[in-house]
Formats: sequence, structure tokens, C-alpha cells
Amino acid sequence: MTDNSANNRNHANRQRVTSYDVARHAGVSQSAVSRCFKPGASVSKKMRARVMKAAEELGYQPNAIARSLISGRSNMAAVVISQKTTLYYPEILVELSQRMSEQGVRVLLFTLEHESDIDDLLDQVLQYQVDGMIVAARLSAQQIDAIERRGLPFVFYNRSFRDRQINAVCCDQTEGERWLVNRLVNAGHRRFGIISGPEDSAVSMERTQGALERLRELGVKQVAVAEGDYSYESGAAGLLTLRAEMGRIPDAVICANDVMAIGCIDAARHQLGISVPAELSVVGFDGVGPARWSSYDLTTVRQPVGRMTEAAVSMILERVENPDLQPEKRIFSGLMVEGGSARLD
Amino acid sequence: MTDNSANNRNHANRQRVTSYDVARHAGVSQSAVSRCFKPGASVSKKMRARVMKAAEELGYQPNAIARSLISGRSNMAAVVISQKTTLYYPEILVELSQRMSEQGVRVLLFTLEHESDIDDLLDQVLQYQVDGMIVAARLSAQQIDAIERRGLPFVFYNRSFRDRQINAVCCDQTEGERWLVNRLVNAGHRRFGIISGPEDSAVSMERTQGALERLRELGVKQVAVAEGDYSYESGAAGLLTLRAEMGRIPDAVICANDVMAIGCIDAARHQLGISVPAELSVVGFDGVGPARWSSYDLTTVRQPVGRMTEAAVSMILERVENPDLQPEKRIFSGLMVEGGSARLD
Repeated sequence: MTDNSANNRNHANRQRVTSYDVARHAGVSQSAVSRCFKPGASVSKKMRARVMKAAEELGYQPNAIARSLISGRSNMAAVVISQKTTLYYPEILVELSQRMSEQGVRVLLFTLEHESDIDDLLDQVLQYQVDGMIVAARLSAQQIDAIERRGLPFVFYNRSFRDRQINAVCCDQTEGERWLVNRLVNAGHRRFGIISGPEDSAVSMERTQGALERLRELGVKQVAVAEGDYSYESGAAGLLTLRAEMGRIPDAVICANDVMAIGCIDAARHQLGISVPAELSVVGFDGVGPARWSSYDLTTVRQPVGRMTEAAVSMILERVENPDLQPEKRIFSGLMVEGGSARLD
Repeated sequence: MTDNSANNRNHANRQRVTSYDVARHAGVSQSAVSRCFKPGASVSKKMRARVMKAAEELGYQPNAIARSLISGRSNMAAVVISQKTTLYYPEILVELSQRMSEQGVRVLLFTLEHESDIDDLLDQVLQYQVDGMIVAARLSAQQIDAIERRGLPFVFYNRSFRDRQINAVCCDQTEGERWLVNRLVNAGHRRFGIISGPEDSAVSMERTQGALERLRELGVKQVAVAEGDYSYESGAAGLLTLRAEMGRIPDAVICANDVMAIGCIDAARHQLGISVPAELSVVGFDGVGPARWSSYDLTTVRQPVGRMTEAAVSMILERVENPDLQPEKRIFSGLMVEGGSARLD
């Protein structure tokens, strides 16, 4: 660092440059400076270049926080996400971050190791005065009550509630599982194994229940369930558990997410020497990137992550503008992917 | 929602409950209430329970933003990350978010589609008055100058600069690549293909240059380079490009990340019917989860993501407290993983 830049830095620390200084330096009005720094505000390219040059020369930092005290908006939305989500983070977070930033809103990230850690976290979320919250974790009725009392708009991502008026965007887990079961039973599979997600995952519960219910309706009797934790390793271990419990390898294994299905396929091929799909059909759920890799070519239900994220962002921003909007649920059908990991004819 | 909670919500929106109201309701001092809502402050469990109950009953939201204007701290750090990073996001973001939150600091997320989009983004970062910034994207010397002038502490994550005094945490890319090349050449490989990352990725450049330099030093003449973009598909396509360019399949392919190495292995096996590692050795870099899957069992260099993240968080927080600390670079050696995807003897 040169002496000159060090001086500038100290200067910037000690005495804040104001928008008035920038306006005077650029020879424009103060409101023009404000518009240049307000996301989404209309301003000509020429004006913007002029103001940015002056701001740069003076080391001006427009103060979004002070502005938020006046407007009542922080232009931040909390995203609360549990670590053990069935989807890879990047798809959700990148999509959310980019779609929100197009609207001038930033993502403040809250990650949970376990879905049950949510209580402490909510106190934190409220402290940052976010405009709204997108929750991809499980909340109890009491926790939802608590948020509603604080008046914070929120939308559930991939969680739905039959008995409650609430904002939610999700993929139709039950419909997807029923499609998988129908195809597998039609193709002659009769002995089924299910590898579920962790006990405290609402998504896993919906998927597993959806599959079990449809198997029952179709009169399938030989069904065993092993509990996984969404990891590759637990998919591999799940297959061994199912084999021990059923006394042999099932005809088909239904996994509550793709990564466990991949672990199950690898265990079948490399630990047990079983051919997939000739001797064993394996299906997943999510449609993550590796599901398409040619070593797996998974039969799965792909969630329309882009459309779901777009819906969540637009729902939360509408409710920041107008908190009295009626609750709304948007349920998207998954895309049925017929891969080579299951015998479907 | 019941009428009652709707009333509460409207009430909370219209008339903010203050810490004074909470103190009176709980029968404690106002400073006790403040301590309860300040991350890291000392307070007894009993006091905390009492204050939280009162806060809950009144619908109190402590105002972190107003507090930040007084303390000069927002308790937020920006994390700027490019979408095309070589590592999966979750490992970095989850680690950063959890380690920072242990220190009472939250991650404000900024994602870039291309590393060259950084200019607009920096203006945005500065508007949110973050306390510091962790950058996992490439910046030009001019961009670094601009941040230094604004006086914002920042640490580069997995980027280093030989000729500049700057804060950086990174994995030793060059050392890792030299180890891979040494092992492959010692095992008798003579014709090398390299699949690089995208042109504007600094990490890819260091890795590719590191491998090329060591191959040159060891007198290896038959080397071809194909450009990838860090994706699975570009690893598969890269192998076909290398074969066309060299007139045959090389002995070994060095990929600038694991996901391309996985694509390369799948293309060899499923498109070309070539056995890995008997006929072709493939190595990657990063140590992502799928590198350990038994279909791949990748020879790679695993980055110590946990330690690197811990270092970045502690460096940024030290510099928020004391902006005059000397710049520091912390370079971590990768963990050499001898998997089954390369013939190493």
C-alpha cells in the first residue's frame, strides 16, 4: 500500500464524505447523487458516470443503513436454510441472491446445522431489521406464531402446511413420489426398499409418506424403510440395512434424495456386485447435477428450482410492499426424468 | 391467521415497541435488555429467559441497524463469491456463515455470474456499510485500490498476489500441482493433457501454470491444453479435444478441478470405452464430496476448507477491530489424496 492510499483510508475512516460533498464535486444536485446510489432508480448513463467519478475521487460511501431508518426498508431479506437440505445449496442460494439483487435486495444468510436450532436464530434475524424472510427449514406452529406477531413477511421455501394459511412455494413431493411408484409397480417391481431422509426433515417425511401411501393403495406388501441423513454414505448404508431386513436385495429402492440414490447405486455395484438397473432399480428426487452424470443417469423428479426461486422472491417482495395480502401457496410439479438407473418397462 | 394475531401484527407495524417498554414489562434495567440482544454479551440464563419472555409478549424487535449507527459496526460482513468457483459453494458458505455467526457477525451474500462483473457489485457492497469483506473472486489492481481508498477491511479467499501487500488466505495451488505432476511422471506417464478452467479464473491460471511449469522442468515434451469452464460437461468435452489435438488419448489428464476430472473419467469410460486408470490416469483438484464416491475415487489435492475459512474469518474480524494491522498471507498446503483414478506406481 502506498502512503497516499493509507492517508486516504485514514481520512475516509475519520470523516465521512457526504452526498452533499459528492454533489458539489460533481457539479450536480444532491438528489441526483441519491438516485445514482438507489438500486433501480432512473438515471442517465452520463450522470451516473459523472457522479461515480466524483464519489470515487472523494471516497464516498452512500449509507444504506441510515437510509433504511428513514425509508423503513433495509433492502435485505434473510434466507434461513438448513445445512441438511436435500438440494445442493448453490442452486437455491445463487438463484435467490441473483433474483433478489435484480430487485435491489440483498440476501443475509442464516444457516442451521439442525432444523431444530431455529429458535435462537429467529431472534437474530429480527435484530437485523430485514424486510422479509425466506425460510427453507422447518418451523413449529409456535415459531410461526412468533414471527407473525412480529409482523415480518415470510415465505416458506419447499415447505407446505395443509392446515395453515401461510405463504409457501414448493415442489409437489407427493405427486412426484406417486409417479415414481406407479412407474416402478407397472414395470413389475414387487419388493420395495425406501431410504428416508433425517427424522426432522419435513421434505423427507412428505416424500417417504407419499411413496408409502401409493404402495399401500396399489397393494404392495413387501416394503421396508431404512433411515438415511441425505448423505451419499447413508444411501450406501441404507441398501445394506434393507438387504438385512428383507433377507435379500429388494427389486427397487426409492431414495428421499438424489445423493442417497447415488450412494445406493455405488454400494450395489462396487460393494455387492449387483447390476443397476438389471438386478436393482434405484430412484431419487431433486434433479441435482450429479444425477445426470453418465455413471448414474438417475431416474428422478427434478424440482424446478429456477421457477420456485423466482416465485419465492416475487412473493416476498409483494408482501414487503403490501403486508395485508392474503396468504398464498404455489405448488410446482416436478419434472419426471426417466434415467437409466431404473427399469421402467 | 386469527384476528388476534392480525391485530398484533398491525400493532407491531405501526408503533414500535422499545427496549424501555421491554425493561418495564420484565422489571429489569434497560441495559440488561440491551445486553440480552447483543451477540456475545454476558448475561445470566435466568435474566435472558425473563427478558425474552417480555420481548416475546410485546413483539419487541431490537434494532441492530440503529445500534450500528452508534457503534459504527453493522455486524455484517460481505462475502463476494463468483458462481464459477472451483469448489462447491456449500462448503465455503456454510463454513463462513457458521464461523462468523459464532462471533456475532452475519454474512451478506453477493454472487457474481462472471468474475468480471465485480465493479457494479463493489458499489453495492459499500452501500450496506458492512464491517468487512471476504472476496472469493478476482479483482484488478485498480479495483483493489478502490476498496483500500474506502477503508474497508477485506481478505481474499483462495486468491493470492505475489507483488502486493494484501490479506489473503489460500491453498497452495502450485505446490499441489507439482506433487501431482511428480507422481504421474515418476509412474511413467509421458503424454499429458491439461483441462484448464475458464480464462478469467485466477485459481485455474495458477493451477494450470503450476502443472505446465513442472512438466517443463522435468523435460516432458508432449503436452496439450484444452480450455474448460469447471463444469462436468467441459471435462468430458476436454478429453475429446485433447484426443483430437494429440492424435490419440494422452497417458494422463490433469484437470483444474474435480468436477471436470469426473466428466473426463465418465467420457473415457462411457463414450470412448477406455479403462481408467489402466489406460488413462485422471487427476483433479479441490477434494469435493463426489471425488470420494466409489465410481470415481479421484486422485486429487484436497483443500483444507475448514481451516482456510477459519483463518479468513479470524483475519477479517481482527482487521475490523484494528484496521492498522499489517497485511498477511496465509497459504495452506493441500492434502494429497491418492485415489484409484490414476496409476501412481
